[in-house]
Amino acid sequence: MLFDEVLAAGPVRDLVSDGAWLRAMLEAEAALASAQADVGLVERSVADEIAGACDPARFDVAQLGRDAADSGNPAAPLARALTALVSADAARYVHFGATSQDVVDTAAMLVSRRAVSAVLVDVWACCDALGSLCAEHRDTVQAGRTLLQQALPTTFGLTVAGWLSSLGAAGRALAGVRPAAQLGGAVGTLASLGEAGPAVLAKYARRLGLAEPDMPWHTDRGRVLDLATGLGRVSASVGKIAGDVVLLAQTEVGELSEVAGPGVGGSSTMPHKRNPVAAVAARAAAAQAPGMVATLLANSGHEHQRAAGAWHAEWRPLTELLAATGSAVWWLRTSVSRLAVHPDRMRENLARTGGALLAERVTTELTPRVGRLVAHDAVAECVRAGGDLAQRLAEHPALGLDRERAAELLDPAGYLGAAGEFVDRALAAHARRKDGQ
Amino acid sequence: MLFDEVLAAGPVRDLVSDGAWLRAMLEAEAALASAQADVGLVERSVADEIAGACDPARFDVAQLGRDAADSGNPAAPLARALTALVSADAARYVHFGATSQDVVDTAAMLVSRRAVSAVLVDVWACCDALGSLCAEHRDTVQAGRTLLQQALPTTFGLTVAGWLSSLGAAGRALAGVRPAAQLGGAVGTLASLGEAGPAVLAKYARRLGLAEPDMPWHTDRGRVLDLATGLGRVSASVGKIAGDVVLLAQTEVGELSEVAGPGVGGSSTMPHKRNPVAAVAARAAAAQAPGMVATLLANSGHEHQRAAGAWHAEWRPLTELLAATGSAVWWLRTSVSRLAVHPDRMRENLARTGGALLAERVTTELTPRVGRLVAHDAVAECVRAGGDLAQRLAEHPALGLDRERAAELLDPAGYLGAAGEFVDRALAAHARRKDGQ
Amino acid sequence: MLFDEVLAAGPVRDLVSDGAWLRAMLEAEAALASAQADVGLVERSVADEIAGACDPARFDVAQLGRDAADSGNPAAPLARALTALVSADAARYVHFGATSQDVVDTAAMLVSRRAVSAVLVDVWACCDALGSLCAEHRDTVQAGRTLLQQALPTTFGLTVAGWLSSLGAAGRALAGVRPAAQLGGAVGTLASLGEAGPAVLAKYARRLGLAEPDMPWHTDRGRVLDLATGLGRVSASVGKIAGDVVLLAQTEVGELSEVAGPGVGGSSTMPHKRNPVAAVAARAAAAQAPGMVATLLANSGHEHQRAAGAWHAEWRPLTELLAATGSAVWWLRTSVSRLAVHPDRMRENLARTGGALLAERVTTELTPRVGRLVAHDAVAECVRAGGDLAQRLAEHPALGLDRERAAELLDPAGYLGAAGEFVDRALAAHARRKDGQ
Amino acid sequence: MLFDEVLAAGPVRDLVSDGAWLRAMLEAEAALASAQADVGLVERSVADEIAGACDPARFDVAQLGRDAADSGNPAAPLARALTALVSADAARYVHFGATSQDVVDTAAMLVSRRAVSAVLVDVWACCDALGSLCAEHRDTVQAGRTLLQQALPTTFGLTVAGWLSSLGAAGRALAGVRPAAQLGGAVGTLASLGEAGPAVLAKYARRLGLAEPDMPWHTDRGRVLDLATGLGRVSASVGKIAGDVVLLAQTEVGELSEVAGPGVGGSSTMPHKRNPVAAVAARAAAAQAPGMVATLLANSGHEHQRAAGAWHAEWRPLTELLAATGSAVWWLRTSVSRLAVHPDRMRENLARTGGALLAERVTTELTPRVGRLVAHDAVAECVRAGGDLAQRLAEHPALGLDRERAAELLDPAGYLGAAGEFVDRALAAHARRKDGQ
Repeated sequence: MLFDEVLAAGPVRDLVSDGAWLRAMLEAEAALASAQADVGLVERSVADEIAGACDPARFDVAQLGRDAADSGNPAAPLARALTALVSADAARYVHFGATSQDVVDTAAMLVSRRAVSAVLVDVWACCDALGSLCAEHRDTVQAGRTLLQQALPTTFGLTVAGWLSSLGAAGRALAGVRPAAQLGGAVGTLASLGEAGPAVLAKYARRLGLAEPDMPWHTDRGRVLDLATGLGRVSASVGKIAGDVVLLAQTEVGELSEVAGPGVGGSSTMPHKRNPVAAVAARAAAAQAPGMVATLLANSGHEHQRAAGAWHAEWRPLTELLAATGSAVWWLRTSVSRLAVHPDRMRENLARTGGALLAERVTTELTPRVGRLVAHDAVAECVRAGGDLAQRLAEHPALGLDRERAAELLDPAGYLGAAGEFVDRALAAHARRKDGQ
Repeated sequence: MLFDEVLAAGPVRDLVSDGAWLRAMLEAEAALASAQADVGLVERSVADEIAGACDPARFDVAQLGRDAADSGNPAAPLARALTALVSADAARYVHFGATSQDVVDTAAMLVSRRAVSAVLVDVWACCDALGSLCAEHRDTVQAGRTLLQQALPTTFGLTVAGWLSSLGAAGRALAGVRPAAQLGGAVGTLASLGEAGPAVLAKYARRLGLAEPDMPWHTDRGRVLDLATGLGRVSASVGKIAGDVVLLAQTEVGELSEVAGPGVGGSSTMPHKRNPVAAVAARAAAAQAPGMVATLLANSGHEHQRAAGAWHAEWRPLTELLAATGSAVWWLRTSVSRLAVHPDRMRENLARTGGALLAERVTTELTPRVGRLVAHDAVAECVRAGGDLAQRLAEHPALGLDRERAAELLDPAGYLGAAGEFVDRALAAHARRKDGQ
Repeated sequence: MLFDEVLAAGPVRDLVSDGAWLRAMLEAEAALASAQADVGLVERSVADEIAGACDPARFDVAQLGRDAADSGNPAAPLARALTALVSADAARYVHFGATSQDVVDTAAMLVSRRAVSAVLVDVWACCDALGSLCAEHRDTVQAGRTLLQQALPTTFGLTVAGWLSSLGAAGRALAGVRPAAQLGGAVGTLASLGEAGPAVLAKYARRLGLAEPDMPWHTDRGRVLDLATGLGRVSASVGKIAGDVVLLAQTEVGELSEVAGPGVGGSSTMPHKRNPVAAVAARAAAAQAPGMVATLLANSGHEHQRAAGAWHAEWRPLTELLAATGSAVWWLRTSVSRLAVHPDRMRENLARTGGALLAERVTTELTPRVGRLVAHDAVAECVRAGGDLAQRLAEHPALGLDRERAAELLDPAGYLGAAGEFVDRALAAHARRKDGQ
Repeated sequence: MLFDEVLAAGPVRDLVSDGAWLRAMLEAEAALASAQADVGLVERSVADEIAGACDPARFDVAQLGRDAADSGNPAAPLARALTALVSADAARYVHFGATSQDVVDTAAMLVSRRAVSAVLVDVWACCDALGSLCAEHRDTVQAGRTLLQQALPTTFGLTVAGWLSSLGAAGRALAGVRPAAQLGGAVGTLASLGEAGPAVLAKYARRLGLAEPDMPWHTDRGRVLDLATGLGRVSASVGKIAGDVVLLAQTEVGELSEVAGPGVGGSSTMPHKRNPVAAVAARAAAAQAPGMVATLLANSGHEHQRAAGAWHAEWRPLTELLAATGSAVWWLRTSVSRLAVHPDRMRENLARTGGALLAERVTTELTPRVGRLVAHDAVAECVRAGGDLAQRLAEHPALGLDRERAAELLDPAGYLGAAGEFVDRALAAHARRKDGQ
């Protein structure tokens, strides 16, 4: 698609394609027949014949799409097409006991599981890269900014540790989502399976590697919402990080840049420009998530035993939320891999306020001696005066500060508090995750 | 797509396809060159050569999509590909003075205009069908329902007049949106066009049949929001109407049904079922809109002269909002064309409460004579007693009502207020629109 | 508030009031001073004096609100007001080392924890009531409805088990959210606490009963999103259940009604009406959640060390999401406590299709003998013919079915599959939760 | 409220308060009685008595709120309370023929109209201030930024003209929304008014200064959506402008600052900080809108004649959307009134790239002489080389450019294209609006 390289880049797009959905629906049909053989409802040979026919190559996905108009979903024509591929004996057991929603919901879970795995591969790769970056710059001094104003010094390591901590937590939350199998028949009773329903459900879930639910969840969409919010949280984290990269790459800030090969991020007519294209694309992809999560939340009121529209309304936002989150993470990983860090610019930017950034520290230091009010006003006066702040402070009659101590107090590297320790803690948390703790 | 017959059905899907976007981007490039010839900036022959090369068949849309990764949008590789198709002389004037966003935004407006036109064709067809339906059933008595409880009688005609009025107003609002051309160059000054910028902009807009803006609107997304909210309002109206169809088609209500050909809306295993598939699909498609509108609203804060992500974030929701709204209206039109109305069931349902639905009327009638409190309590008592309400009322000592008058008061057809007049007003408003007033 | 009894009913409203926020902010200030005494940064007597002054009764919340305009948040004027209440010695240590966001974020977590606890009390009470209801009606036969059409029989017990399972899972997910303390100082380094920062953070968190984060999370809003999505999922579940109650209470369905005292749910002019007011209010409150969750997700891209607007943008949606979810659950609990179940109407409704609901079963039974196609067509023919379906089936030449067996096959109670077992599993899961497993 | 000075600042808060809603509901009741007298349905003296009793001071809004729980809305207890205030004769005609939704919807329109008027006062004041600012800085050169990278020169005048154009268009769209009266009785037929219904509706609307609808719109929420999207568009525009102010006020950019009195925007501990508090608050308030608009859109599917929850779900988001938009505009107006513009910093920032910003211009100039490719590569080479770009260009053997012409080409003020003309057009459009054209 024309816009897919931005909004649906990376490996997830293929994992949520029509082909991926078809494959997953066929896996559900095959597992259903096999599970019924497992419990003795159908002959193993019949089940094997059905499972053998569940080969995506034998189905025309475009035609299935068109045929979905009659019944309102693609599982109905799929069952018909599958039936046509098997012997008359086996035909009776195709899709046996299931409803269309069983197949589509189970496929949604299989598709989501694979897509989430791919998202997580990029999440962890990104975390590893951020981990290295923050270890490397553990002590690189940078201006900390609040409300986009320089406030106090921090380290670039701590900035990155914040990114790592955020993305790591979002990844762990998403990794904890457990997709479940869906099987209930028309109204969730598995009536046509007689007493064998629960046993078939158990085998079906096990064969697909999905969790076995206590009961069919046709109109309890909590499992879809868990996926949605897990993905939304990852996108939110990506959006935060990519936003910071874009801000730090501003011409006037210049503390980061994306360095890439020829043609990437440049402008044909403006050779001085080096657009942080990957971070920009990551933001754009991540920005898709809130609306999709809201659509899934707003359509979770499925009526009675199966919904009249709210269910169909899930397919697009779930599919695209997977693709968009995948794209967001993929672009962020790309951005981080391209990042050039400019510690010199960080120092320069810190110096722009002529030391005023350390005013708080000077005030704190002087307060015990001269009182908070005097200290505060005197320091503010020196800052406003401009010029060499250490000198101004040393010369101020109310403060009794020598120039050397003033200069020391104005050194950003000396006022970093627990920055280093927080970096170490974020790195340790990241390492624990990798050790599977 | 597997789900497109539900969520992107009807003519709009093709009008917002990659091919449609490519065509529209090429129209923008062609109009740009021609407009520059119009004002004498380039030779007419050069402009003609460029315009001639703007043939979608000569471009590989998939490759353009892939190449979009480098710069973050598809207009940049398109300009390169177009340049490669023309002579060296003409090459200098391809995309001359424009930025990628000029081409993509203008294409978005062209794509939207065509898609909106198609949406409106179905909206007006739907309104015509609703107009006929409400004229036909102007006096067909039906239970009016509030909080899903029968409340007082109304007519099916008035029910449909409400649908018509809602959809007609939404259609008119959408029809009033005026897409505008976009042309500003890198930062909206049209600097490389020298003094000719505004003249080129005027010609460019006229050639494309788009409104000429006062100034480039690269980071003023009001025009995109107007489209989005216009589409969202249409989807909202469709969702309301389709929801009512689904409710009226319930097994227990049965006042409407969708009648379609073989295979449509039926269930292979449940022959008694007649699912209102079209209305269900209309609801599902319409339910996509709020999240997309919110995504566009939430991403309207474009920074400075051109945004770092928020712009890219618009492409998908705008495209899909067009497709989803188109699908919603298309399915609603389908549903209305399939509707069978069951006035007998409407009468039956009205009778279920044994006349209690007219309690308000009886109370109102009796209040002047016996006082509101006595009237209210006595009527309520008769209703609670069950059985033949007219008889109960006639027998109640406090009321002094004979059986004939009681029966008359309990006739729903006699208590319809202004229903007929409101139907006529809604039909007149619809007729005025058709007369272009 | 005029609308609060609908949209912010129950105990949560007070727990998220201005007073609750004030109390929580003061708890944060008190804990900060005490934690600093714990690690020896300040004298215990100073900390005690500060903690002692943190009495909500001594602060004017309206004035604090007005003063928030200057700095953009209420923690700044609160710190000033608190400072004014203590001795000059203690004044130096009020809010020491903290930034406004530390206090507001920590307060948000305290407020949320209390509000969530109250939400969960109602969730579990609701689950208990649903558990009793589904145990009682384990075998009460009801029409299962898909796309709002009767499809196959189910039990009201299974319907309720689905509600229980959904709400229980949502409650467990919300109960798993762990609010954390916030303490970082201006840019998250705790610079003014010197080396004591992490130790103070640990004590501060412990004193407040909040989790200790690895590092300050000023611009990592994952913790807020966890709360938001947990609340959103509960609201979604409430919306589903309340929606079903409303549908089942329809005049034409009548399987449930809300029975309440005088004046509740009735209509002054329509005495036959019994509006399911509690379920309606629950839906309305629950419908607030998706937009608020989306607002929080869309505003999670906090810039740098502290955000320029996105942080402030959280206060309202978080507060109201707590109140709305609390109201939704409170109203659902009210609705369930008022529910009258009408098994007779359930039977009546099942009978409306004259047995056609069991067509699938008859077809399944006959297929082995006469083939699927013959069985399907013959059964469909009998259903269409109307009248006594058992008789029709018995008379059909192709089926060879006697009347007795036909009647047996058409008995809904005999075609419930695993309904009973699924109910038992849902109840067991509920019991496990209560046993703390 | 604790957060109201940020998220609900300015005059709108009071206009959407409980008191304002009460007053508006009473106006509806009074207009109803008076309209009925107008058409002769009730005695004028009775109507006058009712209208006279519609005095907000005689009602206890908190009690009405509490009583709303029984019926699910505050209009029902209001009608009871009003009835209790009048004589027995008049009591019969209180709320006569109306349903609760008539009163609440009409009140919503009255409240909205007043709130929108107040919003627009601030919108136009803001536009006036922006108009002055952009006229003053019509020719003040500034770096144009795309993707947050400096791209080409523009003027601060054009930047502001974009803001003005955006906000002006949003204001005009909002001003065009026409609130309508609501009157339909229980199911929209006005049955209890007999044949007089439409005449009463007409008088009622005229008395309230609201548009007269063709028919009751109880479940056609287009009018609410028009308000919502009009407000959302204004908020979007405010968010864009405030976001730019925040970016331009960054420490490293410094082209704008908010200058305010003592205590405002400063930091007690960081005297060098000058937070753009008003712009930050404007962003936060504006960020509330998309979620609220989405909530209103998602709840527009009102069932049948009056909805079971979706209607109640509107009250909060509509009220708060008015307040949040009002706050956003109020804060933006405040921000603009505080703005200090720093043309020196604009010049300085332009100089940071050492002229590279004009590379496009040099390339364009040289292309006819040396060919695009040579020009582009040579210029890029000079930019990369750093130092005095004019000198580098003059020395480059392939270009044949003298130093003077090179310097001229590198002057940003000479490469502004149509910036001035676009400013004039935006100002003219603003002036036309003020002239009522």
